[in-house]
Amino acid sequence: MKIKTMAAAVAALGLTMQVGAAAADEGMWTFDNFPSALVKQKYGLNIDQAWLDHVRGGTARIPGCSASIVSGQSLVLTNYHCVATCVQNLSTAGKDYLKDGYAVGLADERKCPGMWLEVLQSITDVTGQVKAAGAGKTGAAYVHALDEAAGAAEKEGCAGKTGFHCQVIDFYGGGQYKLYTFRRYDDVRLVFAPEFKTGFFGGDPDNFNFPRYNLDFGMVRVYDNGKPLVSPGHLRWNAAPPKVGEPIFVVGNPGSTQRLESIAQLETQRDFTLPLSVARTSERRGRIIRFSEESPENARVAQDVLEFLENGLKVQTGRMNALHDNAFFASKVAQENELRAKVRADAKLSAEIGDPWADMAKAQAAYRDLYLNYSLLDSGAGGQSALFGYARTLVRAAQARAKPAGERGPEFAEARLAQMERGLLAPRPVEAGLEQLNLEFWLSKTRESLGADDPGTKLVLGRDSPEHLSQALVAGSKLADPAERKRLWDGGLQAIETSNDPMIKFVLALEPTAQAIRNQWREQVTGPTTSAETRIAQARFAVYGDKIYPDATFSPRITYGAIEGWMERGQPVNPITTYAGLFDRATGQPPFDLPDSWFKAKPKLNLATAFNFSGTLDITGGNSGSPTLNGKGEVVGAVFDGNIHSIGGDYGYNPADNRSVTVTAAAIQEALDKVYGRGDLVKELNSK
Amino acid sequence: MKIKTMAAAVAALGLTMQVGAAAADEGMWTFDNFPSALVKQKYGLNIDQAWLDHVRGGTARIPGCSASIVSGQSLVLTNYHCVATCVQNLSTAGKDYLKDGYAVGLADERKCPGMWLEVLQSITDVTGQVKAAGAGKTGAAYVHALDEAAGAAEKEGCAGKTGFHCQVIDFYGGGQYKLYTFRRYDDVRLVFAPEFKTGFFGGDPDNFNFPRYNLDFGMVRVYDNGKPLVSPGHLRWNAAPPKVGEPIFVVGNPGSTQRLESIAQLETQRDFTLPLSVARTSERRGRIIRFSEESPENARVAQDVLEFLENGLKVQTGRMNALHDNAFFASKVAQENELRAKVRADAKLSAEIGDPWADMAKAQAAYRDLYLNYSLLDSGAGGQSALFGYARTLVRAAQARAKPAGERGPEFAEARLAQMERGLLAPRPVEAGLEQLNLEFWLSKTRESLGADDPGTKLVLGRDSPEHLSQALVAGSKLADPAERKRLWDGGLQAIETSNDPMIKFVLALEPTAQAIRNQWREQVTGPTTSAETRIAQARFAVYGDKIYPDATFSPRITYGAIEGWMERGQPVNPITTYAGLFDRATGQPPFDLPDSWFKAKPKLNLATAFNFSGTLDITGGNSGSPTLNGKGEVVGAVFDGNIHSIGGDYGYNPADNRSVTVTAAAIQEALDKVYGRGDLVKELNSK
Repeated sequence: MKIKTMAAAVAALGLTMQVGAAAADEGMWTFDNFPSALVKQKYGLNIDQAWLDHVRGGTARIPGCSASIVSGQSLVLTNYHCVATCVQNLSTAGKDYLKDGYAVGLADERKCPGMWLEVLQSITDVTGQVKAAGAGKTGAAYVHALDEAAGAAEKEGCAGKTGFHCQVIDFYGGGQYKLYTFRRYDDVRLVFAPEFKTGFFGGDPDNFNFPRYNLDFGMVRVYDNGKPLVSPGHLRWNAAPPKVGEPIFVVGNPGSTQRLESIAQLETQRDFTLPLSVARTSERRGRIIRFSEESPENARVAQDVLEFLENGLKVQTGRMNALHDNAFFASKVAQENELRAKVRADAKLSAEIGDPWADMAKAQAAYRDLYLNYSLLDSGAGGQSALFGYARTLVRAAQARAKPAGERGPEFAEARLAQMERGLLAPRPVEAGLEQLNLEFWLSKTRESLGADDPGTKLVLGRDSPEHLSQALVAGSKLADPAERKRLWDGGLQAIETSNDPMIKFVLALEPTAQAIRNQWREQVTGPTTSAETRIAQARFAVYGDKIYPDATFSPRITYGAIEGWMERGQPVNPITTYAGLFDRATGQPPFDLPDSWFKAKPKLNLATAFNFSGTLDITGGNSGSPTLNGKGEVVGAVFDGNIHSIGGDYGYNPADNRSVTVTAAAIQEALDKVYGRGDLVKELNSK
Repeated sequence: MKIKTMAAAVAALGLTMQVGAAAADEGMWTFDNFPSALVKQKYGLNIDQAWLDHVRGGTARIPGCSASIVSGQSLVLTNYHCVATCVQNLSTAGKDYLKDGYAVGLADERKCPGMWLEVLQSITDVTGQVKAAGAGKTGAAYVHALDEAAGAAEKEGCAGKTGFHCQVIDFYGGGQYKLYTFRRYDDVRLVFAPEFKTGFFGGDPDNFNFPRYNLDFGMVRVYDNGKPLVSPGHLRWNAAPPKVGEPIFVVGNPGSTQRLESIAQLETQRDFTLPLSVARTSERRGRIIRFSEESPENARVAQDVLEFLENGLKVQTGRMNALHDNAFFASKVAQENELRAKVRADAKLSAEIGDPWADMAKAQAAYRDLYLNYSLLDSGAGGQSALFGYARTLVRAAQARAKPAGERGPEFAEARLAQMERGLLAPRPVEAGLEQLNLEFWLSKTRESLGADDPGTKLVLGRDSPEHLSQALVAGSKLADPAERKRLWDGGLQAIETSNDPMIKFVLALEPTAQAIRNQWREQVTGPTTSAETRIAQARFAVYGDKIYPDATFSPRITYGAIEGWMERGQPVNPITTYAGLFDRATGQPPFDLPDSWFKAKPKLNLATAFNFSGTLDITGGNSGSPTLNGKGEVVGAVFDGNIHSIGGDYGYNPADNRSVTVTAAAIQEALDKVYGRGDLVKELNSK
């Protein structure tokens, strides 16, 4: 149903996004271009610079997710699924926090391996200098020049500062480059997580569905010099019951959208990349589900992986379905044709940008020719094996560090190397069974996709099989030990080249081929695509002006809307669920099996507590954990999902049925207080 | 690469298939409409009625495959993969014929459970009476009337005959109905199978690829009254070395093609059904691969299932890719538009057929709306669980048999009931682990696809989980025991309704819903689709005459061509491989690990023996095991695969690169003689 509804609505609404101001509640706006006037007009709220600065300072980016600082002691609210990896990393076969939840006291808050938190401090336009660096260049040299210029801007931006992260982010597909300066913290400790069965109640079946009953929140705390960071600029907590129609905001880091992409790019996605990735992910899912069923310990170590994988699969499938809606696709074609017609009518503009659509078509043809080689032998090599990832980081960094700083390539600039080292040396459990599964899967897909006779297949497999080689690599490698990783990092290229670690040797042997295909990819795909995108962006600016918002780039954005349901197959969906509904839904069988803690607490709970609500906010993956704010900028919940229709939002926002889903501050507070006995946290949240 | 090449070639060739005589070596021809003149013209061979009658009488249909009778004692040649299920069924945990091969002597040939063999005797046109039955009817009533008429024709055709099977087959999407009368044998015994590692050398990686080195043959024998059936009309064996360019024929039963389908149907496949089934099959594959890795016994019981599943997945993926080739698809749209324009230009024809394309579009919209319900709760319910299948057959047959013969519906006519009973009671091992996996997978996909709140999901799952319910059903059911199935069959509806078997109860509870959705499906999808197809077929006949061949329908067909390679990415592919190449490819790691038997025999083998060859024959799934014949109608091999380009052949034949793959009689004979010590079979094959 969803796709038809979407196409019909998009057609009925006209092409809102590309013809000037975004209508309805559409838009993932940057902090330096928020449409306050639109919000004033629609909701009567006055969103001024002070409001914007306050919420910017109280919100954060964390790995893959978003978060908010909700107390003066840097208590941080995010989603359960954003801290699940930490919960899993802190768990052992003996103490399973995924099962039991993590509700230790302040004294026992423990560091989340590899987690960081960044708060945006400032935005500086560096478009001129980045674009200037690319002038007159093409292919890989063009991409390299832009990357060099971005790296230089980052280095300059953070020069002499410690505890900062400078990142040049491109907007509108290369239309703008902005230097984002973040305050960065690397000591982030787990404060609270409910049981997995509470934090992911309904599991994959309920994911992206609504009505919903999910306590998808977790809390961490930022530490500085071993103590909780004092954070006077934190956001205020408001656990009052939400009201239908109430205006709300979500501030966070939407990961990526493709609303401005060309038809050639969308066709590649629809006809090639998405079908391939859905098939791959589905098979991997099947292997991991069965792996999980083999033992409770396997289930424990794979839980987090499976959750992310199934979430990703729903997203990929939803995107594929959206693009397979021929009416919707035709509307995208019409948009592009309109823009191209306007460009053709403008001789000066035409002369300036050439025919970027033809160039894009060529780049996309190269994409299809090279993608399998590139994804299997370079970008996706190792199949998410942590050991492979460690080995590759060690090999590449050692090779880069052996060169003079000027010849290393921008990804190995000093600042980036330091960050790479921190990530590499952070202690994390390496699960041998899952490692083997990941490697075997990757090796088998390489042979399947490239063919048994392909040089790439022969390079990785030799005369071995995926099943045996994966076992040998995992059994033989010592890279699970952070000390060994440190030894190899410190030892530099000589240590790497003389290492007997089979994973290091494996990656060393693959690296020249990976490097070659990566260069080919940059030369024929990334470079021409970026160049064409930039020129299309230029045309779009020239034709439609700057009242559009850029595609998502996992950078801080604000979106606004209201608490609202929608019409599903002709029936209205109530936007607010309650605790009472949660207990109705709890069948006792996974994933609808609520933990005992809840049944024990039930007599004390206010069952009318608002639990989850849907809203018209335009969000996407990466927004998970973002605070949902009221008009005063107070935290009324944490957004954790969209409904099934929201997935098509990757390509366009449909106000009729694209809905975000928030877990309320009210439900969080009631649970902390009455289920988990954490009145101390409730007190901290509500202290001024 | 394949898709681009195909589209380009199709475009270059023009729309050969629909504009009169099929060009090049295209076509899956029926025995009553073979284009002898074309063959005469191109290859100088005289294919007369005697030739056709001889090969018809010497070729056969077996479950899912094709075969040939190659000795006077009814020795039957087919593919290894066509007897693999039998090999697996005859194996036990103690004696694994999949691993060791099956090379017992004549005295020990054992019955393949559930296998049958059918030889076509005659073809009678019953189009008039079938179409007359449908006149003036629509929807489910239309389909029902056609089915009734077909059932009546079958009953009449086989009246008074035993050992025959009469089947009405529809051609050209309802353009013609023919009564096919087969001589049928139900005692088919396994004679010979090589080791799995020989019969499926190269495994899934090499499947649909070439050069190929696969001894994909197996042999069975037809028994009659406990003795080998005397078969004077058998085909002659010819183990002479094949020659490039030599004209050849394949006679067998291609399963299905969609070359004459409308654009609305192809869009449904491209945008909806294929993406869904590729994702489903991929996940199931992942589960079964991991299941297989859990123990050697699991690997043994799942081997056959996995092989078929991976084969099917390659087919589905290849079809999806073919339809995602936008240039190829545009050529199909152009074909349809041409036909529609010619119809519009013919007022009389237009008036007769109405607008079947508009009706088809409506039926396809209903297809998308109903497919998930229909496939999950009726057609694909049980997820290939044998226990579920037994239960459903028992329940449906008992319910039908409780009604007067006239009200049972054509699928429960007496002749069909007898066949159903034989299938049901044939002893077959039921593997509990695989059963549980299949059921769990189906239940989880039902919940995922329909949603946790859907009535269908609630009906099958109740408040249970897929994981638990599947275990309970398998553990509790006694239907693995043929005696219990017989008791319930013989006991009729009362035995069924009072049974405590949990699978029977489960199916009984599901049946009313399954019945309702099946009726809805017939009314809104099958009926209108069949009606529209029939009228489109009528239009095609009127416009293009009868020089086209019908889509494949798993019925006997002849296709002709020559031993030929093709150009792959600009390089010529040699069409004939040898034993020497097999030994080069044998790395020792699965699936390239040749059994010891071959290394022992290597010194005796003629390594120059031609092993596999590619040819221009237009075949598809179902043709597996078909004899490849020379101009004299002698068996020179058994066809077992196509190259990767052949998969797109589902929608159109491209002579440039669509190739079949045959294992030679020469290789079979050399292996029987020198590897397996079965000189007796070689002697039998070569006796006159």
